[in-house]
Amino acid sequence: MIGRLNHVAIAVPDLAAAAARYAGPLGARVSAPQDLPDHGVRVVFVELPNTKIELLEPLGDASSIAAFLAKSPSGGMHHVCYEVEDIHAARDRLVQTGARVLGDGAPKIGAHGKPVLFLHPKDFDGCLIEIEQV
Amino acid sequence: MIGRLNHVAIAVPDLAAAAARYAGPLGARVSAPQDLPDHGVRVVFVELPNTKIELLEPLGDASSIAAFLAKSPSGGMHHVCYEVEDIHAARDRLVQTGARVLGDGAPKIGAHGKPVLFLHPKDFDGCLIEIEQV
Repeated sequence: MIGRLNHVAIAVPDLAAAAARYAGPLGARVSAPQDLPDHGVRVVFVELPNTKIELLEPLGDASSIAAFLAKSPSGGMHHVCYEVEDIHAARDRLVQTGARVLGDGAPKIGAHGKPVLFLHPKDFDGCLIEIEQV
Repeated sequence: MIGRLNHVAIAVPDLAAAAARYAGPLGARVSAPQDLPDHGVRVVFVELPNTKIELLEPLGDASSIAAFLAKSPSGGMHHVCYEVEDIHAARDRLVQTGARVLGDGAPKIGAHGKPVLFLHPKDFDGCLIEIEQV
């Protein structure tokens, strides 16, 4: 069911400093920062040949990234996102096998303008998984 | 400098159960488990079209994964691995820009039989980064 790894998201306390580390010491191609107020994040994309890394900084007080950084002030790996062809079929399969979908279970429009769901990390070894229909 | 994302590693407390979740609810192709005693891990590869996920279970008492799970018993995202063409050139660039290489700074032979280095997570927003020469 799951297809490509769309991205790995890393929460960072200082987006400009993090972007400079990926562009400088790591020598990667890094996008300009984008504000996504509906998602409570400011994001920079690190563009790799086969996938991308999303560096996430909180935007606004209700950001879920702010809550993450309150527990891990240095930052850390936040989630992975897998692509699926049909998010409703994916959701049904996951729910039928006992996995919990966060929120009300309905897909939302994600940071890339496509339908997404998040799965409960306790059902996947402490790893927060995003599913995105591409 | 960094090229493809070679893999994302997730530490898990029960490898067989984790592999079953990726093969079942998530519907991914999952390898047979492999023991890598030199690295203190038993590993299963989740094979995605563009990269792979490594599920890691401790093997032996001195496993670094056992230490990780002592802090996070449910498991969690452990590291990301980026490919480089020349690991010595990569190491020199990183050290010159102030990044710290774990251990004695010399590349070791990693779980895939290729030279690897790990970078200090405090220098990269709490994210443990492995660099692998491919």
